[in-house]
Amino acid sequence: MSGIFIAFEGGEGSGKSTQTQIIKTWFEKKGRDVVLTRQPGGTDLGKQLRHILLDLSSKEVAPITEALLFAADRAEHMHRVIRPALTKGEVVICDRYVDSFIAYEKGGRQLDAEEIDRLSHWATDSLAPDLTVLLDIPPKSGLARSGDLDRMEMQPVEFHERVRATYLELAASHPKRYLVIDAQQSPEEISAIIKERCVLLLMTK
Amino acid sequence: MSGIFIAFEGGEGSGKSTQTQIIKTWFEKKGRDVVLTRQPGGTDLGKQLRHILLDLSSKEVAPITEALLFAADRAEHMHRVIRPALTKGEVVICDRYVDSFIAYEKGGRQLDAEEIDRLSHWATDSLAPDLTVLLDIPPKSGLARSGDLDRMEMQPVEFHERVRATYLELAASHPKRYLVIDAQQSPEEISAIIKERCVLLLMTK
Repeated sequence: MSGIFIAFEGGEGSGKSTQTQIIKTWFEKKGRDVVLTRQPGGTDLGKQLRHILLDLSSKEVAPITEALLFAADRAEHMHRVIRPALTKGEVVICDRYVDSFIAYEKGGRQLDAEEIDRLSHWATDSLAPDLTVLLDIPPKSGLARSGDLDRMEMQPVEFHERVRATYLELAASHPKRYLVIDAQQSPEEISAIIKERCVLLLMTK
Repeated sequence: MSGIFIAFEGGEGSGKSTQTQIIKTWFEKKGRDVVLTRQPGGTDLGKQLRHILLDLSSKEVAPITEALLFAADRAEHMHRVIRPALTKGEVVICDRYVDSFIAYEKGGRQLDAEEIDRLSHWATDSLAPDLTVLLDIPPKSGLARSGDLDRMEMQPVEFHERVRATYLELAASHPKRYLVIDAQQSPEEISAIIKERCVLLLMTK
């Protein structure tokens, strides 16, 4: 039995937390060991970095510094949590993975596209998910559903429009790996679509 | 009056702290405003990262994570401290700059050379010092002179031999910028050599 790696991506308020929990329970009912984790913050080091990164008091950090801290968190998380769990045959469900890094830094922050692509590959040793679920939602709707605003969420709506566009480009570039879902549907409708795809994953992995 | 940027590089126990202080005082006596700073840890963010990086409790951090955290520190330091001071015409004396990053990550840790080179350029916006003083010392002599050992200093001597070799390669590749000094001389002899070069810098900048 080999590991299964599923990443959930999408803007603020797209319902990632709800769906990752539903899919975790679904795999557990199938008798699988599941690791539910998230970026940033999925390791002890990551928790420290998450605190630095999402804290409003760090808002003066240079954009490139922010990108490198996120990349460090991604690297640590992949090496210490995701790959070891997959090696043990577990199901890894990740609330944001490296595609969020690309969408926010290349799309949102508009940092150098080539450098961000290289960095994302290097930091994660090019480990890609078996399935990336993109919960797609127009930023205005998503932000309205989101609670307390952190430093990413406080960016102007144009920032979030670019993030969304970059996610959709990534999905178009990796059609086999990506499942794009309209996140304005009900949680039940959304989870039904994801479970259908997970059945296929269980058959092929 | 334009800014002057001097970096001090070299292994553990090579006398960087002593020499940076002497040269700081020398420039101040010439009537210049001097910023003496260091990497890692030259910004508020950097101090938090330095704590994470040099703390023995973080020894399980993946090598690539460590490299990305150092790169983040370098980026923040360049954008927030070094470049603003140079713009104001100040003299910036930096205890370790990006060549340390290259020497330790490419040489010491043996991470991918091309990725480390690209990362170092990107993080620092390719800003190079006017003068890089390399205080060269055989690792065994340097480590014997060093005090409490942090996680870098606790690496085997082969690690420090590779760091030294990478420094010397960098110096050979940038002969105009580099001043290589045998750090086993007395502090007075060393500072006399550096001051001689600084006189030239003052005449040309």
